[in-house]
Amino acid sequence: MSEMIGFLGLGNMGQAMANSLLQAGYVLTVYNRTASKAQQLLAQGAHLAHQPAAAVTTGGVVVSMVANDQALEEIVRSPGFLEQLGSGGIHLSMSTVSPTTARRLAELHAEHGSTYVAAPVFGRPEAAASQDLWICVAGPREARERVQPVLKALGRGTFEFGEDPGAANIVKLCGNFLILSAMEAMAEALTLAEKSGLDRSAVIEMLTQTSFSAPVYQTYGKMIAQKRHTPAGFRQHLGLKDVNLVREVADQESLPMPLASLLHDRLLAGIAKGRGEMDWSALALDVLEDAGLKLPPGL
Amino acid sequence: MSEMIGFLGLGNMGQAMANSLLQAGYVLTVYNRTASKAQQLLAQGAHLAHQPAAAVTTGGVVVSMVANDQALEEIVRSPGFLEQLGSGGIHLSMSTVSPTTARRLAELHAEHGSTYVAAPVFGRPEAAASQDLWICVAGPREARERVQPVLKALGRGTFEFGEDPGAANIVKLCGNFLILSAMEAMAEALTLAEKSGLDRSAVIEMLTQTSFSAPVYQTYGKMIAQKRHTPAGFRQHLGLKDVNLVREVADQESLPMPLASLLHDRLLAGIAKGRGEMDWSALALDVLEDAGLKLPPGL
Amino acid sequence: MSEMIGFLGLGNMGQAMANSLLQAGYVLTVYNRTASKAQQLLAQGAHLAHQPAAAVTTGGVVVSMVANDQALEEIVRSPGFLEQLGSGGIHLSMSTVSPTTARRLAELHAEHGSTYVAAPVFGRPEAAASQDLWICVAGPREARERVQPVLKALGRGTFEFGEDPGAANIVKLCGNFLILSAMEAMAEALTLAEKSGLDRSAVIEMLTQTSFSAPVYQTYGKMIAQKRHTPAGFRQHLGLKDVNLVREVADQESLPMPLASLLHDRLLAGIAKGRGEMDWSALALDVLEDAGLKLPPGL
Amino acid sequence: MSEMIGFLGLGNMGQAMANSLLQAGYVLTVYNRTASKAQQLLAQGAHLAHQPAAAVTTGGVVVSMVANDQALEEIVRSPGFLEQLGSGGIHLSMSTVSPTTARRLAELHAEHGSTYVAAPVFGRPEAAASQDLWICVAGPREARERVQPVLKALGRGTFEFGEDPGAANIVKLCGNFLILSAMEAMAEALTLAEKSGLDRSAVIEMLTQTSFSAPVYQTYGKMIAQKRHTPAGFRQHLGLKDVNLVREVADQESLPMPLASLLHDRLLAGIAKGRGEMDWSALALDVLEDAGLKLPPGL
Repeated sequence: MSEMIGFLGLGNMGQAMANSLLQAGYVLTVYNRTASKAQQLLAQGAHLAHQPAAAVTTGGVVVSMVANDQALEEIVRSPGFLEQLGSGGIHLSMSTVSPTTARRLAELHAEHGSTYVAAPVFGRPEAAASQDLWICVAGPREARERVQPVLKALGRGTFEFGEDPGAANIVKLCGNFLILSAMEAMAEALTLAEKSGLDRSAVIEMLTQTSFSAPVYQTYGKMIAQKRHTPAGFRQHLGLKDVNLVREVADQESLPMPLASLLHDRLLAGIAKGRGEMDWSALALDVLEDAGLKLPPGL
Repeated sequence: MSEMIGFLGLGNMGQAMANSLLQAGYVLTVYNRTASKAQQLLAQGAHLAHQPAAAVTTGGVVVSMVANDQALEEIVRSPGFLEQLGSGGIHLSMSTVSPTTARRLAELHAEHGSTYVAAPVFGRPEAAASQDLWICVAGPREARERVQPVLKALGRGTFEFGEDPGAANIVKLCGNFLILSAMEAMAEALTLAEKSGLDRSAVIEMLTQTSFSAPVYQTYGKMIAQKRHTPAGFRQHLGLKDVNLVREVADQESLPMPLASLLHDRLLAGIAKGRGEMDWSALALDVLEDAGLKLPPGL
Repeated sequence: MSEMIGFLGLGNMGQAMANSLLQAGYVLTVYNRTASKAQQLLAQGAHLAHQPAAAVTTGGVVVSMVANDQALEEIVRSPGFLEQLGSGGIHLSMSTVSPTTARRLAELHAEHGSTYVAAPVFGRPEAAASQDLWICVAGPREARERVQPVLKALGRGTFEFGEDPGAANIVKLCGNFLILSAMEAMAEALTLAEKSGLDRSAVIEMLTQTSFSAPVYQTYGKMIAQKRHTPAGFRQHLGLKDVNLVREVADQESLPMPLASLLHDRLLAGIAKGRGEMDWSALALDVLEDAGLKLPPGL
Repeated sequence: MSEMIGFLGLGNMGQAMANSLLQAGYVLTVYNRTASKAQQLLAQGAHLAHQPAAAVTTGGVVVSMVANDQALEEIVRSPGFLEQLGSGGIHLSMSTVSPTTARRLAELHAEHGSTYVAAPVFGRPEAAASQDLWICVAGPREARERVQPVLKALGRGTFEFGEDPGAANIVKLCGNFLILSAMEAMAEALTLAEKSGLDRSAVIEMLTQTSFSAPVYQTYGKMIAQKRHTPAGFRQHLGLKDVNLVREVADQESLPMPLASLLHDRLLAGIAKGRGEMDWSALALDVLEDAGLKLPPGL
């Protein structure tokens, strides 16, 4: 297998994913705004592009993994990108962005003869590194089939959500909303346990070995029990961005989501207090403060 | 094994648990306010007591599984109960009650020479029927050891939380709070998906096969996706009772729990609308109504 | 006018009210758990009772103004109180207590031939000192008429709410709930203004000279704008007590009150952080902290 | 006085305000997207413009009163508008828009030599008709002074908030947030009173004659007590728009506003249920529904 693929966006997630593609035998041209982040990949044989269009092969596949809607828009609208992708090209867009952005960009690609496939992922950088991502895919069927080998090289399973590219993003937003909800619930419960004289870790271990034996509870439960929220796998700033995407869709669809409101207010407080760069599980620190407890030293 | 055990409280859970004890070879004397609920157990060899004290063997073990704090208090304070249990007797109290009640009753037993062991369980009636309960145990060590065989006959695992009988109840309350939180999160997320044109079941299947592959999400996710909340495994009325126990502890410990407040308001709305006898997952119907969606026919 | 009246409870409010009665010419016998608080009144001619019953004249009027339901219960159940009040006596109960307590105590008085009149008041200690209280009255008509002169000596207006003694307490709770809601709203609004670069005082002055030209907004608006919450006219602890009374009624009546939940969580956070003895308007400090702002020096 | 003024936007508020200017002797040229709304004003001597620029006198004053940020942007960016206003012209912008929009448009006007003065108003259409509006003004001092006579013709008082045009909008948003908060509080309190057997009107009358003797409580308290929310003075849709502007500023400034979140969710539910065209006080109907009460007939 020596297909050429472009890869745009080399944050924590993007680097690990690009690496998986290299390991799977793809020939990779990578681009990142800060080029220095490409070094390790270049050492493994990747080529460097100095602008997005330069990573694109006409009629080929280009993957993007960036931080937010704006970064994705900038790439798509960068000089020559859509023209270079051209007829038959596929943009496999794996970032978590709003369904509205996904739909609008899908139209824009269609106008240029190419196809936008939405494929947001579930998993932290560790999962990306071990090809353990779960991937939601939506877009035109033919394109979805064509990118299957790429997705297989990146994750351990894909779920198909039809033709509407916005659908995959909504599933992804639902997932992140569920994760945040679980973290808030664990933070409140473990603080209740602590103030009642119980050991936070003993409580969460019992719960995550029984009714809550799911990765999300096990991973974040441990962090929240131990009050360890650095280094950040996913920053509070990004958590707030995702809650705001959820609220945007909820507003469009006229759906009150009081739990989303609560999460928004919680994350915003953490950011106001200067903890935006910590892991999003750091929302639990706010629960401690509201309970009049001291934060762990160094925070 | 032909030890005699008393069993008090034959609701959905109690009947299944008493049955497990019969199957394990215990000689059982059962009591329930409404005696008719004992019929199936009597047919299998259980004896019937017409008042709590009559089910108690001095120095033996008596198990209770009742609906709330008040029912438990009534049993313990019923004529002759504590006197009959006497020196060396153990009351294995498996109901979900407040830690305050547990601690007060533990003292009361101690004054009569007997021991109160708190052992609230995780699991719905189906799990009780198949001895698949998870059990949290707290109380004096010796007594905890003595009831191990009984607990083994009832569930598939026990978790020990020390000497303070209130501790086991706090863990149980934390668990129920986490379950309710997960249901609210799923209800909001799936209504968002539905209003966005996605299939509720497809979304929850993806999520519960991946990051949320835990029994709680799988069981309740299905019910919420399908909008089926009868028959009730655990009624909204009881859900509200448990949230109020959580809030009671939170108030004692000076801990704001905004998510507990949200759940309280949600359950109270369902009860105000006449859905108190439905399964507690029916809180999801309120999310539908707030979104202007029609409820399924028959509700 | 030289009628004899008993007066029980000499906190900030009680002292000022008892003083008003002395000024109006009543002969007063006062009681307080901590007798030293009676000194100023004794200097003005009041008599001292060493237990509640000793302040009561059979067939007469006794006024009570205490901190909470429990303190009121203790007075009514103190040795000889109901017997001494006897046939034809009136207990004018002016504390903010739950409607349930009011109804239960009304029955208890009726069993002893006396009458319980609920008459909770609106106003801070300054208003009590200048006879500017507003009073809500409920109870048997005849008794309500008989206490009119007493109420006139205490406040500037009374509002009648019928025979059910609980009704006056519900109105009082509604009022305190509205006050707390207004304070939360002002706290959030003024913090928004401050973070946007505006002057808190200028904003609240504009609003309280126009659409919000009511005493509650003017009094508390100033305190919140200036971040001055001591000395306490009414402590956060008492504010939480009142919100909990509101929530108790709401639970009995199956009414979700999300704003009451929010206020509960807000006050509880302030108490958890050690600010329970500050004025209840100090809930605004929590809004500042959640916004990452520094508290004024000394807090 | 025969100064010529342009007036843009003839909704309920705009018509009443334009009428006030005619009465004050101004020569008026009016514009509205739907020209038919101008008829009454034309009958009183106003001139009709068929596009915004045609209502503008170079170096003169043009007033705008439109529904939202987008409508205001469209006017300012309509062909010839800024060029026609030209050097020395003043745009007196009285709509409730975001501070961000106000600041951006102020810069745009400055680039064209004209001045943007923000002057949002407090008051419903009745107040506009009787020149009883309260007006918040912000912008360059000289321009603020020049429009004083115009403001005098429209309202009964102005409050100055300095040079930053966004400041006046923030005060206006704070005011609307306080109004919504008061309505939510009254709705919850009166539903509590109703479910407890009290008369809604009697309770609100007591409160608005005493601690809450402010126009906002008197006007909306009556509507909420009587459950009458049509005709709309200000629609729920616009209420939601304003809450969203509040939340937008709160997000920019990193300030969690849980009460704003609650109001957002409340209004969104009313809109989801088809009540977006009713008066914003109709948020009280949602409180009734959540309490399991029947809505008044016809709703």
